[in-house]
Amino acid sequence: MTTTLIRNGTVVTADLTYKADVRVENGRIAEIGPNLSADGATELDASGCYVMPGGIDPHVHLEMPFMGTYSSDDFESGTRAGLAGGTTMVVDFCLPEPGQSLLEALKRWDNKSTRANCDYSFHMAVTWWDKQVWDEMETVVKDHGINTFKHFMAYKGALMVNDDEMFASFQRCAALGALPLVHAENGDVVATLQQKLLAEGNDGPEGHAYSRPPEVEGEATNRAIMIADMAGVPLYVVHTSCEQAHEAIRRARQKGMRVYGEPLIQHLTLDESEYFNADWDHSARRVMSPPFRNKQHQDSLWAGLQSGSLSVVATDHCAFTTEQKRTGVGDFTKIPNGTGGLEDRMPMLWTHGVGTGRLTPNEFVAVTSTNIAKILNIYPKKGAILVGADADIVVFDPEKEKTISADSQQSAIDYNVFEGKKVKGLPRYVLTRGKLVIDDGAVKTEEGHGKFVKREPFQAVNKALSTWKELVAPRKVERSGIPASGV
Amino acid sequence: MTTTLIRNGTVVTADLTYKADVRVENGRIAEIGPNLSADGATELDASGCYVMPGGIDPHVHLEMPFMGTYSSDDFESGTRAGLAGGTTMVVDFCLPEPGQSLLEALKRWDNKSTRANCDYSFHMAVTWWDKQVWDEMETVVKDHGINTFKHFMAYKGALMVNDDEMFASFQRCAALGALPLVHAENGDVVATLQQKLLAEGNDGPEGHAYSRPPEVEGEATNRAIMIADMAGVPLYVVHTSCEQAHEAIRRARQKGMRVYGEPLIQHLTLDESEYFNADWDHSARRVMSPPFRNKQHQDSLWAGLQSGSLSVVATDHCAFTTEQKRTGVGDFTKIPNGTGGLEDRMPMLWTHGVGTGRLTPNEFVAVTSTNIAKILNIYPKKGAILVGADADIVVFDPEKEKTISADSQQSAIDYNVFEGKKVKGLPRYVLTRGKLVIDDGAVKTEEGHGKFVKREPFQAVNKALSTWKELVAPRKVERSGIPASGV
Amino acid sequence: MTTTLIRNGTVVTADLTYKADVRVENGRIAEIGPNLSADGATELDASGCYVMPGGIDPHVHLEMPFMGTYSSDDFESGTRAGLAGGTTMVVDFCLPEPGQSLLEALKRWDNKSTRANCDYSFHMAVTWWDKQVWDEMETVVKDHGINTFKHFMAYKGALMVNDDEMFASFQRCAALGALPLVHAENGDVVATLQQKLLAEGNDGPEGHAYSRPPEVEGEATNRAIMIADMAGVPLYVVHTSCEQAHEAIRRARQKGMRVYGEPLIQHLTLDESEYFNADWDHSARRVMSPPFRNKQHQDSLWAGLQSGSLSVVATDHCAFTTEQKRTGVGDFTKIPNGTGGLEDRMPMLWTHGVGTGRLTPNEFVAVTSTNIAKILNIYPKKGAILVGADADIVVFDPEKEKTISADSQQSAIDYNVFEGKKVKGLPRYVLTRGKLVIDDGAVKTEEGHGKFVKREPFQAVNKALSTWKELVAPRKVERSGIPASGV
Amino acid sequence: MTTTLIRNGTVVTADLTYKADVRVENGRIAEIGPNLSADGATELDASGCYVMPGGIDPHVHLEMPFMGTYSSDDFESGTRAGLAGGTTMVVDFCLPEPGQSLLEALKRWDNKSTRANCDYSFHMAVTWWDKQVWDEMETVVKDHGINTFKHFMAYKGALMVNDDEMFASFQRCAALGALPLVHAENGDVVATLQQKLLAEGNDGPEGHAYSRPPEVEGEATNRAIMIADMAGVPLYVVHTSCEQAHEAIRRARQKGMRVYGEPLIQHLTLDESEYFNADWDHSARRVMSPPFRNKQHQDSLWAGLQSGSLSVVATDHCAFTTEQKRTGVGDFTKIPNGTGGLEDRMPMLWTHGVGTGRLTPNEFVAVTSTNIAKILNIYPKKGAILVGADADIVVFDPEKEKTISADSQQSAIDYNVFEGKKVKGLPRYVLTRGKLVIDDGAVKTEEGHGKFVKREPFQAVNKALSTWKELVAPRKVERSGIPASGV
Ligand SMILES: [Zn+2]
Ligand SMILES: [Zn+2]
Ligand SMILES: [Zn+2]
Ligand SMILES: [Zn+2]
Ligand SMILES: [Zn+2]
Ligand SMILES: [Zn+2]
Ligand SMILES: [Zn+2]
Ligand SMILES: [Zn+2]
Repeated sequence: MTTTLIRNGTVVTADLTYKADVRVENGRIAEIGPNLSADGATELDASGCYVMPGGIDPHVHLEMPFMGTYSSDDFESGTRAGLAGGTTMVVDFCLPEPGQSLLEALKRWDNKSTRANCDYSFHMAVTWWDKQVWDEMETVVKDHGINTFKHFMAYKGALMVNDDEMFASFQRCAALGALPLVHAENGDVVATLQQKLLAEGNDGPEGHAYSRPPEVEGEATNRAIMIADMAGVPLYVVHTSCEQAHEAIRRARQKGMRVYGEPLIQHLTLDESEYFNADWDHSARRVMSPPFRNKQHQDSLWAGLQSGSLSVVATDHCAFTTEQKRTGVGDFTKIPNGTGGLEDRMPMLWTHGVGTGRLTPNEFVAVTSTNIAKILNIYPKKGAILVGADADIVVFDPEKEKTISADSQQSAIDYNVFEGKKVKGLPRYVLTRGKLVIDDGAVKTEEGHGKFVKREPFQAVNKALSTWKELVAPRKVERSGIPASGV
Repeated sequence: MTTTLIRNGTVVTADLTYKADVRVENGRIAEIGPNLSADGATELDASGCYVMPGGIDPHVHLEMPFMGTYSSDDFESGTRAGLAGGTTMVVDFCLPEPGQSLLEALKRWDNKSTRANCDYSFHMAVTWWDKQVWDEMETVVKDHGINTFKHFMAYKGALMVNDDEMFASFQRCAALGALPLVHAENGDVVATLQQKLLAEGNDGPEGHAYSRPPEVEGEATNRAIMIADMAGVPLYVVHTSCEQAHEAIRRARQKGMRVYGEPLIQHLTLDESEYFNADWDHSARRVMSPPFRNKQHQDSLWAGLQSGSLSVVATDHCAFTTEQKRTGVGDFTKIPNGTGGLEDRMPMLWTHGVGTGRLTPNEFVAVTSTNIAKILNIYPKKGAILVGADADIVVFDPEKEKTISADSQQSAIDYNVFEGKKVKGLPRYVLTRGKLVIDDGAVKTEEGHGKFVKREPFQAVNKALSTWKELVAPRKVERSGIPASGV
Repeated sequence: MTTTLIRNGTVVTADLTYKADVRVENGRIAEIGPNLSADGATELDASGCYVMPGGIDPHVHLEMPFMGTYSSDDFESGTRAGLAGGTTMVVDFCLPEPGQSLLEALKRWDNKSTRANCDYSFHMAVTWWDKQVWDEMETVVKDHGINTFKHFMAYKGALMVNDDEMFASFQRCAALGALPLVHAENGDVVATLQQKLLAEGNDGPEGHAYSRPPEVEGEATNRAIMIADMAGVPLYVVHTSCEQAHEAIRRARQKGMRVYGEPLIQHLTLDESEYFNADWDHSARRVMSPPFRNKQHQDSLWAGLQSGSLSVVATDHCAFTTEQKRTGVGDFTKIPNGTGGLEDRMPMLWTHGVGTGRLTPNEFVAVTSTNIAKILNIYPKKGAILVGADADIVVFDPEKEKTISADSQQSAIDYNVFEGKKVKGLPRYVLTRGKLVIDDGAVKTEEGHGKFVKREPFQAVNKALSTWKELVAPRKVERSGIPASGV
Repeated sequence: MTTTLIRNGTVVTADLTYKADVRVENGRIAEIGPNLSADGATELDASGCYVMPGGIDPHVHLEMPFMGTYSSDDFESGTRAGLAGGTTMVVDFCLPEPGQSLLEALKRWDNKSTRANCDYSFHMAVTWWDKQVWDEMETVVKDHGINTFKHFMAYKGALMVNDDEMFASFQRCAALGALPLVHAENGDVVATLQQKLLAEGNDGPEGHAYSRPPEVEGEATNRAIMIADMAGVPLYVVHTSCEQAHEAIRRARQKGMRVYGEPLIQHLTLDESEYFNADWDHSARRVMSPPFRNKQHQDSLWAGLQSGSLSVVATDHCAFTTEQKRTGVGDFTKIPNGTGGLEDRMPMLWTHGVGTGRLTPNEFVAVTSTNIAKILNIYPKKGAILVGADADIVVFDPEKEKTISADSQQSAIDYNVFEGKKVKGLPRYVLTRGKLVIDDGAVKTEEGHGKFVKREPFQAVNKALSTWKELVAPRKVERSGIPASGV
């Protein structure tokens, strides 16, 4: 395999910033240091650039089955888009249909992912509950290298699980050393609000936002946290979009609970006014759950990244074409939920985070890559610039600018929710396991290059929490003679 | 009817303290003023005493059906106990069995209450949901003078309703101008914890406390608040026992939501150590839901009364004898839930509230009587010392002392959870609609004297909230040509 | 004196709403009831109207000395403006100059107030500290009927006191049963920010807002609360304008501390954009401390009124003419601080509070009149519709509308900060101690009619707090032999 | 210099846990990897051990001048104690007397520190304020490698600075890229409470605790945060001991403010009951500021370490002998403030943090070493196990146990506040810049081995914050013609 030498850059990781060259061999980082000798290696000029761990997007839905069709970006176009933006690993969600074997569903996902251009992994969704699921969870963890289980508190009648099932699954996660994830919205309330809005004639895309107010997300987040606490397991809340949910997370954390929140780049930078656009298509294209919120919620999310109460920036990339979106004309509940973002996450976050001073470059690396690698227990294989780590690297030019446009994007869809936004800070080079795939603008991805990344259970936080929960477990009161009062 | 003149006392209401005599005629207050003329009236010497509105206990269960038996205090002994402690009105809960007509259940309760010694009213419980319940709610409000509906979020498989049902019922309450009440504990989680504890051999009364930690109460409180907010209706949370639930209430109120919390006198003054007593009976007698909490939770509740984030002190009086309690030997889930308190609420709260300086005498009146009268929309018929108000009056002697004991109580049960506690501040006289029933220690109650108190819907807060919710309701975006983008 | 009968109205107090006529004799309410007989009384038709306690504005500065001139509304025009808007009592601040005797200052204020058209009282400011002040505070309380002492944490070099002095004064208040008030802004920080802004060329009225951000108000509020807590005395925070200050108040209250917050009608309804107006005069006329805030702060204040964490709506009426304001052209620190509001407080609050459903009519009465009467210990002489209370009454027509304009106002100044705002809900009649002064639009005030209202110390909350603080006071550890370790 | 090979250990850093050997050469880490060749190196057997970055204690006072004497541990015994416990770097406070040149004070500290057994650095205290201090701050930063300035908000009449001075100094820090530190207690209130307590006869050590309640610490913390925010500079709060202070820190962080809190190992593990001991000496030996708090405060601090709202565990080591402590017999204000802790911080935190499951081993490293290294801008020279880093290493045996006792400690004083506490988890070996000084129980420290560690200003967070503050700085409103209204 080719040896590559990244020259003259500044290495930026979650905790370090220093001048060094980086040598890549056999898909891994082989050497880091000043003035490394070329030694026949292909050289990449990183002058003026930051050499950072490639981004990890822990929340994507590629070729996701939906109402007889699929989300339009598959593992090929989706990972290509990701790489173009500096993201070198994605985690998709394996979604068994209610009643379907987890292992069977996994086969289907394994098939789809063979086309991936970069490494990937899966979260397993728990969409129903019985003894079979309980059994298969162990297999999924031990034989398939999956240590995360997703739970939907919304999408009633489809993916949603109730408190009972969630509590059972969370307890199972605790025993297996796995991490539960939740999509946190109160599905009962959303379903009722949807019917109420439609009945009142509120059938446009703004109805989607009206039917999913911050309060229903905050409530579900709070509930999931309580259940995780009772089960003695950490919790990861996907797409935390609002102050109410963030508040619940903060409140838990300030009691020592182990809860992670994941804002999306969309919620950090776009607001609810998108749904009030006079153009139905404009609004429908932005329909996702949770919906975009207002400025105050955005401020809350940014502050969460700054303070550490929120841990990871993702995309929930789930791209539907305008044509697919139009399924919902006249009934917003039929608009497929999802937007793109894979290609734009890193430049948008750099521009609005590092560019404004809200984040340091190190914090940028932490929230786009290193934190999630640790949470998923794949650090430092991923998320690190360290000798021995996978050579998933982005050489990031902080001066490079562009205006985002669907015309020039990698994604398969015909629009971009960030259309027209200017970004400053873009990849010059991107390497996935040592392979140069973004070469100063040229896209040289290789279909099928991506490999599945296995993840071990019992991350350090799981272990510590179990120790603590054992220590404070209920103790039986010993009594002699019951009743003793002799009344 | 007799005319009574209360002489030389100091009238204390929720907002006034002043010297005045009070004349009672025909069951109502006829005159208030200095030096009223005797005019043939029976005189009661209130020297050194406070003349206050009789207590209202909005949360009692008298002769409540339970597992083929009944809670031991019925409307006769229960209201007698209440009167002895200065409480002149109680509100019981009419509990339809799942599937049972609300009106049918009401008949049963009407029968039981004929023996009441003081005035009373009912909350109607919504324990199941379909079109019939929806219909009957209107009848209950309009024809039966009941403006409150109770919802159990716990007692899975029995009284519990789910989020869907609760949301539907709350919306119905909003339309009818009624106030929803909730018993807030996550029933799914409680049920699972119960099974887990029993499986681990934790079968004693302390297991009851372990199975209902503050977190599950806080979660349910938070959820009910969100649902009420979505329904546009105020909310009343019964037996708020812990900081977690109180925090949820405070958080809602600080956003302007209309939420009331009701701590019980037990939670204010007794703590969880009661469940760790070596005597099984001692602990089992204190089994109620929510269970007693620790000192920090108590501090939170007291502060809530001081600041107004909690509104009402009640008892959830539901008395079971030791024999009944022993049903749960070997399985705490079978211990009937409930404790007494009706007789002791006023003296205990005065002693620990006014006596310590945590509450002013006016605040004492507010939280034992006036606030709930306003919330229930029966003020100033009840809860007031005003001309025209019902002569439900307690002449309270702040210097009178006793040690609480089952031996000398009115309640039908054989123990008292406050056994041995000293109180300072006790009724000298108690009048129920003008009738002197507690006469300096002598109990002269009259079975059947009590009357049902009708309550009108659309309390001022309900109306204001509806106005606001209408003002901020979702507005449809008008669009011409969908889709407009012409793509 | 004339007898007046207010006919066919609906009496609205802080806790009651009922149909009744009200008879006024000798300046007091003589009788309340249905269908009172005319009996020669002058009749006022209150059909369709609410008969409410006249407003009390606890925060005004009439004819306040300032830089060699005076605020333009004096006790005559100021109280006339107040009466026109339904306010029947004002409390002004007696401001001794540093070093000046409190009693001497009081004489000066007594002189000014002889022209008042309605009843009034004074808060005494503590603007410096030594033994004389300590001594005179007792005289002020015992001989002059003043139970409130104001402390400025801002206006460095002029009125400001430091923490030491404030603590000493608060302790003195505790001993005298008086209530301390604070203007809460960090004066050190404000002074430094002012110089910094001027140095940077930020000399316009917007500089005033920049120099007094919410953070400096929040900090000072928090500090004053801590000091009051240490001194064991309740605290009243004037002109609470922002979430930061409100948060500090809520946080204290949720620990049981006795703290009151007073938002102004200006902060509830006007926002910071006023300072960015291209017209210097427009902005300068709105210069007051604290400055107007943004929408989020307004929402916080409204919610505080709804939940009870804020208690009173005032104006800080301190009117300067445009000419006076222009003193600060080129240097915003020289713009005299203050706006009008006395005439508009009641209609503006009704329109934006009751009209929108944020407040009930009873809550309106509470926050404009009754709450402050209780806090100031003058209830029910003021703030009540009760027999024996002063006949300070507003007959309020909820359907009456107008557009606020300086052209038609009573205030002496040449503009109105609410210019152009429409209000719905205005007085039809206003009586001050029985005298009809606003008669369906006609202003019939009588200069000098107003009397000083004496206020007793040791309000119930002060007493309760002292009891509590005594109970939890530090206790000495008794030790025999010191040191005992014998090392 | 000796080469050392640490064999068979598990490297534990703030973010990694992996098996590896570590080779040390010339005082630095030369190689990390599996099965490194011995190559003549001295081998240390780390089997069963964790190889971690040596602890950094950022808060010590060695040989601190105090009332004509000195704290008893000097740079020799203090650093020896630290090394024995696994701490390989300390940061002391250079304390100019009011009026004294910063540079002159620094000379005195340079003299004392020549005896240090391990590396060290200084914080510079700002104890007074004028142009000279302003000037010298730059020299201190640029020429002396000090990037932190300490401010005392307590110790009135001695070290205390007022808000004005603090704001000026914080602004200076912002400009110089330095980090301000605060000792946060309201000195005015403390001084008054001290006098009050003494006057009441409360002269024992418990009076010390009474005079410094959590509220005064919370208040000062809140104030310092506001001032730092206004100055646009991050803030580091030393010895955060209570929920009130922690709450202020959390509240700031949740708005995105850059604030760090530093709990002490003493406050995490000891409580206020120590001051109620019948033995005066026992209590006096525990006198430090802030004093120990109760269990609820401890829980808050632990949760802060877990959630990241608190960053660093320190000791404030400032050891006075029993004899020195007895200066305060009869007057607690004369008891020298300070306790030991340097030797016990690491084992106590491991035992109560990692041993209970509250912290992971990685979090242990973060809060004892890596976080502060980053904050002080000396990472990865210190706080890291990376090639090139200083070989400050602790080989930590998690199974090693002892009972803490003054009899066997390194500290010069005659008692230990942790006397009798059992710890599990102790150093097997400790290296300071490559020198083995703790060798399985044997202490082989070398006086004078320690070197001063220079620290650069403009840490990444300072820079980012400056960018943000510039972005949101006040903007002047451009107006043509002032006044424009033409009135
Ligand atoms: Zn989702
Ligand atoms: Zn998703
Ligand atoms: Zn209940
Ligand atoms: Zn109940
Ligand atoms: Zn002011
Ligand atoms: Zn003022
Ligand atoms: Zn200190
Ligand atoms: Zn210190």
